[in-house]
Amino acid sequence: MTIPLRVPDAAELKAAAERLRGRIRRTPILELDGQEVGVQGSVLLKLELLQHVGVFKTRGALNTLLSTEVPPDGVVAASGGNHGAAVAWAAREVGVKAQIFVPKTSPQAKVDRVRSYGADVHLIDGYYPEALIASKEWAAERDVLQIHAYDMTSVVAGASTLGQELVEQVPEATAVLVSCGGGGLYAGTALGVGDAAQVHIVEPELCPTMHAALEAGEPVETTLGGVASDSMAAPRAGAIPYAVATSHHARSFLVTDEAIIAARKFLWERCRLLAEPGGATAFASLLSKAYVPGEGDTTVVVISGGNHLDFPSPSDPARRGSPNSPS
Amino acid sequence: MTIPLRVPDAAELKAAAERLRGRIRRTPILELDGQEVGVQGSVLLKLELLQHVGVFKTRGALNTLLSTEVPPDGVVAASGGNHGAAVAWAAREVGVKAQIFVPKTSPQAKVDRVRSYGADVHLIDGYYPEALIASKEWAAERDVLQIHAYDMTSVVAGASTLGQELVEQVPEATAVLVSCGGGGLYAGTALGVGDAAQVHIVEPELCPTMHAALEAGEPVETTLGGVASDSMAAPRAGAIPYAVATSHHARSFLVTDEAIIAARKFLWERCRLLAEPGGATAFASLLSKAYVPGEGDTTVVVISGGNHLDFPSPSDPARRGSPNSPS
Ligand SMILES: Cc1ncc(COP(=O)(O)O)c(C=O)c1O
Ligand SMILES: Cc1ncc(COP(=O)(O)O)c(C=O)c1O
Repeated sequence: MTIPLRVPDAAELKAAAERLRGRIRRTPILELDGQEVGVQGSVLLKLELLQHVGVFKTRGALNTLLSTEVPPDGVVAASGGNHGAAVAWAAREVGVKAQIFVPKTSPQAKVDRVRSYGADVHLIDGYYPEALIASKEWAAERDVLQIHAYDMTSVVAGASTLGQELVEQVPEATAVLVSCGGGGLYAGTALGVGDAAQVHIVEPELCPTMHAALEAGEPVETTLGGVASDSMAAPRAGAIPYAVATSHHARSFLVTDEAIIAARKFLWERCRLLAEPGGATAFASLLSKAYVPGEGDTTVVVISGGNHLDFPSPSDPARRGSPNSPS
Repeated sequence: MTIPLRVPDAAELKAAAERLRGRIRRTPILELDGQEVGVQGSVLLKLELLQHVGVFKTRGALNTLLSTEVPPDGVVAASGGNHGAAVAWAAREVGVKAQIFVPKTSPQAKVDRVRSYGADVHLIDGYYPEALIASKEWAAERDVLQIHAYDMTSVVAGASTLGQELVEQVPEATAVLVSCGGGGLYAGTALGVGDAAQVHIVEPELCPTMHAALEAGEPVETTLGGVASDSMAAPRAGAIPYAVATSHHARSFLVTDEAIIAARKFLWERCRLLAEPGGATAFASLLSKAYVPGEGDTTVVVISGGNHLDFPSPSDPARRGSPNSPS
């Protein structure tokens, strides 16, 4: 089953919002003081890490499953992480079978999560490309729907509901910052936000897929690595996201691994939010001054996911529970 | 400096809201589906763990410091945890000195946090009562403001801003669930919510201070212990909270330690929220069916804090950052 690559149109964006209403969480906004972040204007966080499955990817996965006729053998996806878990969750929601091809190098926590949603997990030697190849071979012999992580019209339309919500929640937004791997999050947000605000891309210096594409004038392969690579390292920018980025005159700002680590730490220390590295990448651009808002700006930062840890438990349980230390 | 115990009046509640506007975060609401919690109606979480210092206690501490003339020697508080950190933070905000008396049995993470806000930490042998006695001895010889954790008019008025916000955010709320130690959170929320909804108390079976007070007809000592005791174990219910509870015909629902642990786990697995045990206690009443909403109810659950852990980092760092496992 091959589906053509096409930027979703206005009707598809609207249909996605209606389809997902009540099935996807309307994730809340946390307003910070620009001063505490060290920038001008006001800063608001879109807490998409509180989404089902801890990541925005459920929007695209569920929109795809609710808008496409699913063949008898169900759906298949390759992913070491968030996309696989989101597809597994969405498949369970609509009651179809999901096969997720996962490289053996994926963190155990992420593999366990995929399985917890009831998907069949196929463990494949190697990395994501090997898992992707294996998933395609498997799919070739069956009547299944392959759900791409970012280069798929229905996936981008699903992600656009994040942008549509954001504009309703923060109509005064002047700029929106999102991280970017293959670019589905960016494309969806830019389409959903429309003319209401400028959507900027933030990428790890070590995974600069869209940055490289915008420089080269087409999606190209780049070096991939660093602390956020489990969610940011797409082989290259997707064709749909690249088309959206050029038509919207997007800019990509780069951040270092140190900045990403500092952003994660800030989000924990100041807001008790546990973002994964890719989820904290957009925010890193503010703290590190890779992106500098102007006076009077209202900047919304998408915190896109929080899935790289198992349930953290107290480090020091023996010292807890003392009967007389209240408040 | 002795301050009489009095339930704050309407003017004091309003003044607290005006005073704290822009200085305290308006913490967001996360809407869940009642079905995923296994109850009727809709369930919304008030994410007060995203407050400054990770706990609602900053509201009371800052309201006190902004409405009371602070003597030359500054402020003093005894606390093993959240109240101490909140007072330390608020003192830094307004530029006065804070002395926090902390029992040596407190978790290191909490002690470090108090210090990180620039307070002088006095480590005292024993538990909270010993720290409280030491703080009073210290205060007796000086001109300082003692800030009580819950039994103080300005502290309760500060906490009421949570209830006032909640009603603005969820005007359709029919019930609000809050955990209770000494009762400052309950009293503030009940006063702030007023007639708009019924505010219910949830307490750990092992720290049933208000439950015992309501049964005995006055605040009494109870057994104290269990997983939430670092925030729930007050020696007895405060006089102000008890007065509010009786005038509002409050009910207290009890939950087991197992229910609190399950609630913390649910909040992490389903929402990526890291509540501390006392912060998850109110929610535990829904999951365990200690409290059962009716059809058509809109129940708001206050997630009051998330301060018992150090910054959690990946358990499996060696397996992260593989260059080719995106999405
Ligand atoms: C996280 C948290 N929740 C609830 C409470 C209970 O507050 P109160 O003692 O005002 O009842 C506390 C008290 O420290 C707390 O730290
Ligand atoms: C948490 C998180 N943020 C951002 C992204 C980037 O999304 P995209 O590949 O659509 O650019 C991903 C991709 O997996 C992700 O998991």
